[in-house]
Amino acid sequence: MSLQDSVLQGDRLAVSRLLTQVENDTPAGHAALNQLFVHTGKAHLIGITGAPGTGKSSLVNQIALHYRQAPQPLKVAIVAVDPSSPFTGGAVLGDRVRMRELSGDSGVFIRSMATRGSLGGLAQATAGMSQVLDAAGFDVILIETVGAGQSEVEIAKLAHTVLVVDVPGLGDDVQAIKAGILEIADILVLNKADRPGVEAAERALLGMLKLGHPTKHLVQHHGRLEEVLAPADDAPVDDWLIPIRRTVATEGAGLPELLEVLAAHKAHLQNTGDWQRRERARLHTQLQDLLQQSLMASWRNTVTDAQYTDALDQLVARKLSPRQALQALLP
Amino acid sequence: MSLQDSVLQGDRLAVSRLLTQVENDTPAGHAALNQLFVHTGKAHLIGITGAPGTGKSSLVNQIALHYRQAPQPLKVAIVAVDPSSPFTGGAVLGDRVRMRELSGDSGVFIRSMATRGSLGGLAQATAGMSQVLDAAGFDVILIETVGAGQSEVEIAKLAHTVLVVDVPGLGDDVQAIKAGILEIADILVLNKADRPGVEAAERALLGMLKLGHPTKHLVQHHGRLEEVLAPADDAPVDDWLIPIRRTVATEGAGLPELLEVLAAHKAHLQNTGDWQRRERARLHTQLQDLLQQSLMASWRNTVTDAQYTDALDQLVARKLSPRQALQALLP
Repeated sequence: MSLQDSVLQGDRLAVSRLLTQVENDTPAGHAALNQLFVHTGKAHLIGITGAPGTGKSSLVNQIALHYRQAPQPLKVAIVAVDPSSPFTGGAVLGDRVRMRELSGDSGVFIRSMATRGSLGGLAQATAGMSQVLDAAGFDVILIETVGAGQSEVEIAKLAHTVLVVDVPGLGDDVQAIKAGILEIADILVLNKADRPGVEAAERALLGMLKLGHPTKHLVQHHGRLEEVLAPADDAPVDDWLIPIRRTVATEGAGLPELLEVLAAHKAHLQNTGDWQRRERARLHTQLQDLLQQSLMASWRNTVTDAQYTDALDQLVARKLSPRQALQALLP
Repeated sequence: MSLQDSVLQGDRLAVSRLLTQVENDTPAGHAALNQLFVHTGKAHLIGITGAPGTGKSSLVNQIALHYRQAPQPLKVAIVAVDPSSPFTGGAVLGDRVRMRELSGDSGVFIRSMATRGSLGGLAQATAGMSQVLDAAGFDVILIETVGAGQSEVEIAKLAHTVLVVDVPGLGDDVQAIKAGILEIADILVLNKADRPGVEAAERALLGMLKLGHPTKHLVQHHGRLEEVLAPADDAPVDDWLIPIRRTVATEGAGLPELLEVLAAHKAHLQNTGDWQRRERARLHTQLQDLLQQSLMASWRNTVTDAQYTDALDQLVARKLSPRQALQALLP
């Protein structure tokens, strides 16, 4: 049986092997993905991101666990995108501390990926790996990214639903980061909500949401703090109101409510046609990345090493500016 | 007088205008940079990065202030790369709270840039802006990035000297992030060093450094904690031993010592030829980015909108895989 047929049947070893092929960008991986792609498009892709220290991994573990323990359990895959480093020889987080409850469960598949190489390559690999897991029959794919930089935002954008995690008590500097990732959030989670300062943190998040969507009415669902702005006349009726949910992931608190809102967001996407729109945007981005890689590879065949070195030498010597060196190297 | 001549004379208004041109990637900006490029290569480019909440901005302010107050004051430019967000209409940090001591000083130039558009575009703009400031006669250019994601690492790499800022008391999750940026550090700064836990934080940093360079002997310069590993036989004599410096930026404590080590690193780069090697690597990266942009733009002229839309439609309908759609769109 071919590797892709085994993947379609959900064979874990085959899935694991194909993920490695896709991560390593091999021709065999490309060929298998070409075959499998027609079987994708069913999974709910959920991106989880947020500033460091927010307890994302625990939250992801708990989300997976609760999907497994639901009356109709879903098959869950976790793709953890980790910063790589020569300091640790690769994935810092590796296949690190995952909950005992998840290990040995054949309905759960966990894979870590180190962020090596280019950003484009990483997003590409994440997209491909999600497609493999989708074809293999996982209903939910949790894409967890560490950090909150541009690259994490790019990766989170691969998802249908983006969950941004925050905690009470981070400094002002973090607010600036949050602004950058808030704009991609579909759901906000205040984790470690048993900490002091949770009210203030929630108020701050609401303030930023209002700043971003001044014409939308924002309903704060937690109940303790009620903030509703008047809806603008031109606001579409089916606007998604970004909910804020409190969790204490280490204890599983707030998880059932979070799963409800994840289901609600999926239903919202499907009812409004946003599911298809996001799918299209996602595939457009992936196609652009592929084009970029491919064009660079073709161009590389048009110049000799000596030509390139010569242009670079002149650039370093300030005889050519960067754009003049570019002109010298284009066909 | 042309814009670039005014820039060469250090005219602040001209510098400001050209920076805008470069940031907006205009043809006039390209033309001016072509002319100015021969006048670059003199400034010491210092990248400052680190996890959120480490007080990078205060530290950058203090570095600038201390360069200004030195017996032979240097001209200092600050380029603050900020995450952009529709939540605030652009730069979150904007031209925010900079020290009163710096404002009105003609030897200091401060510019914020929002991180919009692609990563490549941002690094490109930062490189171009540094070149403008270099040509305008600034001796030191401080490139401050918010956050510690891949993009920040890319931007920090534009510098000759990379300073990674940490603080005592951040969580374990942050350690993972630090591993990713530690590898680009030339100098480590433990800011907010009056906080509890500074010894433990320093020990943790030393541990990570040892992990990364197990064969190098690491000298911890602060004096309180002395850790020296035996040097490997094959370690080059001129290896740079990553120093750790403690600061309390809000009070200016530790700044003279930090400036000393910045000067030492510059001397080290120049004495070992690393200055030229980094310059070359930097310009190589910039050239690659420009090639990528240019090839994509040329390719775009080879397909009609209808052709692209058709390929995307088939991709969304799963009639083509991403790589099959790519093949359909290549000339």
